[in-house]
Amino acid sequence: MAKVKGLKCRECGREYPAEPIHVCEFCFGPLEVVYDYDEIKKNISREKIEKGPKSLWRYVDLLPVENPTVGLTAGFTPLKKAEKLGEVLGLKNLYIKDDSVNHPTLSFKDRVVSVALSKAKEFGFDTAACASTGNLANSVAAHSAQAGMNCFVFIPANLETQKIIGSLVFNPTVVAVEGNYDDVNRLCSEIANDLGWAFVNINIRPYYAEGSKTLAFEVAEQLGWRAPDVVVAPAASGSLYTKIWKGFNELKKVGLIDEVKTRMYGAQAEGCSPIAQAWREGRDFIKPVKPNTIAKSIAIGNPADGIYALQVARESNGAWETATDEEIIEGIKLLAQTEGIFTETAGGTTIAVLKKYVEKGMISPEETVVVYITGNGYKTMEVLEGKLSTPVKIKPTLKDFKEKVLARV
Amino acid sequence: MAKVKGLKCRECGREYPAEPIHVCEFCFGPLEVVYDYDEIKKNISREKIEKGPKSLWRYVDLLPVENPTVGLTAGFTPLKKAEKLGEVLGLKNLYIKDDSVNHPTLSFKDRVVSVALSKAKEFGFDTAACASTGNLANSVAAHSAQAGMNCFVFIPANLETQKIIGSLVFNPTVVAVEGNYDDVNRLCSEIANDLGWAFVNINIRPYYAEGSKTLAFEVAEQLGWRAPDVVVAPAASGSLYTKIWKGFNELKKVGLIDEVKTRMYGAQAEGCSPIAQAWREGRDFIKPVKPNTIAKSIAIGNPADGIYALQVARESNGAWETATDEEIIEGIKLLAQTEGIFTETAGGTTIAVLKKYVEKGMISPEETVVVYITGNGYKTMEVLEGKLSTPVKIKPTLKDFKEKVLARV
Ligand SMILES: Cc1ncc(COP(=O)(O)O)c(C=O)c1O
Ligand SMILES: Cc1ncc(COP(=O)(O)O)c(C=O)c1O
Ligand SMILES: [Zn+2]
Ligand SMILES: [Zn+2]
Repeated sequence: MAKVKGLKCRECGREYPAEPIHVCEFCFGPLEVVYDYDEIKKNISREKIEKGPKSLWRYVDLLPVENPTVGLTAGFTPLKKAEKLGEVLGLKNLYIKDDSVNHPTLSFKDRVVSVALSKAKEFGFDTAACASTGNLANSVAAHSAQAGMNCFVFIPANLETQKIIGSLVFNPTVVAVEGNYDDVNRLCSEIANDLGWAFVNINIRPYYAEGSKTLAFEVAEQLGWRAPDVVVAPAASGSLYTKIWKGFNELKKVGLIDEVKTRMYGAQAEGCSPIAQAWREGRDFIKPVKPNTIAKSIAIGNPADGIYALQVARESNGAWETATDEEIIEGIKLLAQTEGIFTETAGGTTIAVLKKYVEKGMISPEETVVVYITGNGYKTMEVLEGKLSTPVKIKPTLKDFKEKVLARV
Repeated sequence: MAKVKGLKCRECGREYPAEPIHVCEFCFGPLEVVYDYDEIKKNISREKIEKGPKSLWRYVDLLPVENPTVGLTAGFTPLKKAEKLGEVLGLKNLYIKDDSVNHPTLSFKDRVVSVALSKAKEFGFDTAACASTGNLANSVAAHSAQAGMNCFVFIPANLETQKIIGSLVFNPTVVAVEGNYDDVNRLCSEIANDLGWAFVNINIRPYYAEGSKTLAFEVAEQLGWRAPDVVVAPAASGSLYTKIWKGFNELKKVGLIDEVKTRMYGAQAEGCSPIAQAWREGRDFIKPVKPNTIAKSIAIGNPADGIYALQVARESNGAWETATDEEIIEGIKLLAQTEGIFTETAGGTTIAVLKKYVEKGMISPEETVVVYITGNGYKTMEVLEGKLSTPVKIKPTLKDFKEKVLARV
């Protein structure tokens, strides 16, 4: 295991072996995977990666897994040059990293879960679990099925049936907890301590989080081995956003790209924006909030990686910005109607916030801008009910068609 | 335009220039694109394809388009070795061609629509249209947005709102026609004759249909340049099924693979199985039926390519088989719970029918089998309501968790 040195506390720097642990015993800080970049540099090359599998596993040299067994088709999603959206916004080099078609459950969570469960299998776990209502639950259930692992998905009891079908179809045990998300999360932490289960976003979190780096790796390769000038990415816990930054910097460390001058621009829904609020107020700590937004997939009131996300914004000359629910819907429509990509509220938030950064003059027309679209609109169509145009009704005759449709357009 | 010779009537053989026409003027037979394979052979190679774009456009030499402009990220979906499903069924070399994650609208329709609208733009059309309720409507609406074309989607008026949000978000004009699918289709044919619009599955159909060949091309490349022993594919109009066969045979004609010994096994829902019924009864003609199945995406009672699909089954030593609605649901669950892939009813039909072919001894354990999964389950979750296990309800305490959940598993 030469490539991974071990785990390290992000607060006090204390080191730990690479085991299924996530909190520092001394200061309770979160643990992070540490690599031996000199060793990795000897083994890695652009050519080797380009010949690798057409999935995120082409970057296994920079991931904390020895033997990938779960999620073998995850990642390697399109980077689409957004000509039409770029025209609307006045950007000449705008790209969409389109994880709305990630495999198999249509969100970037397929990346983190692939890495988490491949690692969990290496550790010898036979049971996977998570606390979630949406994308994470779908992905953990799907990958557990693939992996032949038992699966427990914990959700708040008041969730609509429709929302859990996309998890139930994979046949996990779904545990509906009477209480809100916080109650569910607290219970899961207790269970993780008590039982030998792999809770992907609790005791396996240090490994899980590394999966998001592949969002940076793929983009750099797809741009012809360079980091973009600007990234716009959404945040719930702040993990994805911070790991994209880590990813670009790792590519530089191992010599695959020359420089990282990327400005990291973050996006949150106004109704749940603890990171953006701290940024606005110049704080370096997070004040938890109670979520109140249609953007449920990114509604975490007390983000675990919030303070690191603030650090990354400062370090990268980046920023944080928010979008209202109305702006989020407009963002979804704008992306659909220019690029033909149907994203969910997280993507709507990101597009809406991109627009604000442009309007504030924080992005110039020639810069290479990559926007991360992290989830699919077909999974949560209900948020658009009543927000779209309505059909024109006609009788099945050419005459009626001409009078009622052609005459109108 | 050396690669395309023109169009040819599939019935009387009469030839036409490559224009936006679809029916023979003399015998009313359907027209098909004809290529100059000797010319193509000179230009094509495995290496050239492998260096091409990571989309279906890497096969542009075998498609009727000169200048692809629409659907640039469509295709190039994963071919997943299905180890777990293979174990259940007793197949050692089973693969899933996973178009449930096709870009951008999550079905194989993104292939045919990319080709149809790229061609429509070459012809100079500024308006795209189709008659459909489901996957085709989504894809035409999305690609028209990308292409900057006007878009008209015709649907039966009694369709649920939820179903059309996935089209409306791209802002087409949705025309709700009072009547059933047949009425909608008839009206669309009249309009196609009357107006200069590109109806993808009417006047552009010869070009549109060619897009499905890429399902064969990609699979051959992904298998290391060979055709599988067995294909299992679903049919509505029968176009996809016949074009997969055409695709493998073209690869042989231009020297990219050595032989095609593929047996083409077709799949239909019992409640709408005009092709399979003709096969069962040894007929070489189709008796139209009235659809009555949950598999709405493949419910065409009078399939345009039905007789050609019967010919392909005979020619390839193939067969046709059906699945009941109950078996379709079991098929969806089986694929989800072994491979972590959530497909819709068309995919459930294909998996259920695969199982029957195996049980009848029509596939042997060592053969290379490719199953085409053509649509995504997240788009039509309602068909599973009441068909899955239900959550276990608990209070947010470790004690309740242990008593109600742990004690049960
Ligand atoms: C679609 C989508 N985008 C973005 C996020 C944000 O992820 P993170 O918690 O890493 O900030 C999530 C998950 O919470 C998500 O589901
Ligand atoms: C998901 C899906 N699979 C298969 C088909 C069958 O296509 P074809 O009409 O080419 O037989 C369709 C479309 O009708 C579809 O939507
Ligand atoms: Zn510490
Ligand atoms: Zn003819």
